[in-house]
Amino acid sequence: MRSLLLLSAALLVGAAPPKPLTPTDIVNAAPKSVWKQVPSDDLLVMDLQNGSRVVMQLAPQFAPVHVANIRALARGNYWDGATIYRVQDAYVVQWGQNDSEKGFPAGVVAKPPAEYTRPFKGLAVKPLGHDDSYAPHAGFVDGWPIAYSPKGNWANLAHCYGSVGVGRDLSPDTGTGGELYAAINPLRHLDRNIAVVGRIIDGMANLSSLPRGTEALGFYKDKSMYVPIAKVRLASSMREAERPAYEYMDTQSASFAKYLKLRANRHDDFYIRPAGGVDLCNVSPPVRRKG
Amino acid sequence: MRSLLLLSAALLVGAAPPKPLTPTDIVNAAPKSVWKQVPSDDLLVMDLQNGSRVVMQLAPQFAPVHVANIRALARGNYWDGATIYRVQDAYVVQWGQNDSEKGFPAGVVAKPPAEYTRPFKGLAVKPLGHDDSYAPHAGFVDGWPIAYSPKGNWANLAHCYGSVGVGRDLSPDTGTGGELYAAINPLRHLDRNIAVVGRIIDGMANLSSLPRGTEALGFYKDKSMYVPIAKVRLASSMREAERPAYEYMDTQSASFAKYLKLRANRHDDFYIRPAGGVDLCNVSPPVRRKG
Repeated sequence: MRSLLLLSAALLVGAAPPKPLTPTDIVNAAPKSVWKQVPSDDLLVMDLQNGSRVVMQLAPQFAPVHVANIRALARGNYWDGATIYRVQDAYVVQWGQNDSEKGFPAGVVAKPPAEYTRPFKGLAVKPLGHDDSYAPHAGFVDGWPIAYSPKGNWANLAHCYGSVGVGRDLSPDTGTGGELYAAINPLRHLDRNIAVVGRIIDGMANLSSLPRGTEALGFYKDKSMYVPIAKVRLASSMREAERPAYEYMDTQSASFAKYLKLRANRHDDFYIRPAGGVDLCNVSPPVRRKG
Repeated sequence: MRSLLLLSAALLVGAAPPKPLTPTDIVNAAPKSVWKQVPSDDLLVMDLQNGSRVVMQLAPQFAPVHVANIRALARGNYWDGATIYRVQDAYVVQWGQNDSEKGFPAGVVAKPPAEYTRPFKGLAVKPLGHDDSYAPHAGFVDGWPIAYSPKGNWANLAHCYGSVGVGRDLSPDTGTGGELYAAINPLRHLDRNIAVVGRIIDGMANLSSLPRGTEALGFYKDKSMYVPIAKVRLASSMREAERPAYEYMDTQSASFAKYLKLRANRHDDFYIRPAGGVDLCNVSPPVRRKG
């Protein structure tokens, strides 16, 4: 059977030159010092009733009010009995509370500000170094892919594969955070129009492989298709013995610079022509389960 | 229930201005003259044993030898009994003949040339009009998204969501076409390194929602997970009564120019800040079932 990316060490014979490094080699060789732990208050753990788990990293530095809402909703068990009710192909998987009568727990801001961008000033950025189709600049801040304009003094979390945003009605509504979606395709045209609050860092395939809804916009046709959520908790609310931990690569590190360079210039055996460029969403900042 | 993109006509009251057009409005209003029929010899129909169907449009103008191989393989019933055996999240769904003893039908070129690019000269291009992260230019030719260099005199079909390519081993192998994959995420870093032979134009969700494989590179762990293919036929080989037909929007038309402009500048009710730019793979040339 052929494979698209067949890795083979068997070709290394005699005085052959060393194999060119892959981006994965860089990640695997990165020293312990470049890995930063995700705070347990930024880890949102969604367990589905089918036994699968999806883990999100929240981004309070980009959407503080929405993230505070999400923490309050999780602590108040708001999503108990909630479902995934929309899967639109090449677009989003969306979930939340279907029971519109269910009130919000204490501390939830009903009408949050439009946290679609934040000031650029003060951010330590690793520039992508290649053109972006949607913004004057693209790059990375503390493990997050961002688009930005120093001149306009704005920056936004980019809608890449796995980004988590806040469902809303028509503008100027911003949504509370009670309904969330994960992008299952890059959706950069939504940048600066929706509050992005984080990204899926584990279990993404448990969302992306769900059956697509057949109604308009991918809503499931009837409730029998809804995917029930067992519970959504902050890692900080879980008992220590069961609390998962994750770490992400410092995007200001030399390891990330090498990783980025290789994402844009693949030289390993499979490749013939390195691109000499790369799209923001094709450079997912590395993250891994800890321990 | 909130929806991410809730469309509502109820807001149109009194002397309200007309609603801004969406890209879909442009597609729906496009005159009959801008729609071009896909030749039945370019339509590859894959029926899975589970009853679902996936339809591909082939691109002979970009990979003539590989496409001729694929036609010969289909006419020779090569994929009868084949399976989908690899689903790598955010990457590819791959299928083909697992029985390596099965010989190729007559007419199949065992070692095709590396049709990764073609000369740019002679192509009628609609430029994207925005920066591309992977190539000097991006645009559209006869319904296909391409990257190109007039100076270098090359053009390639871009690896966008739904693009179909030819699985191969390490270079300089190019694959025969007996094993194919569909991209379930934009994979532009593979541009110019693989023969892209077409795109999925119907039934993409039947591939993208398949369970992800748990082995390295997304291969299914055991054969019980393989998704059996019933048959793969060219529409030109099907009886007229059962032959599907599709048409695509002429990318040189005024309708497509409007569609492209709106993909880069969303002004409808949901949007607050139009991007003023768009990525090549976020402008899927419209295609639809005919009749």
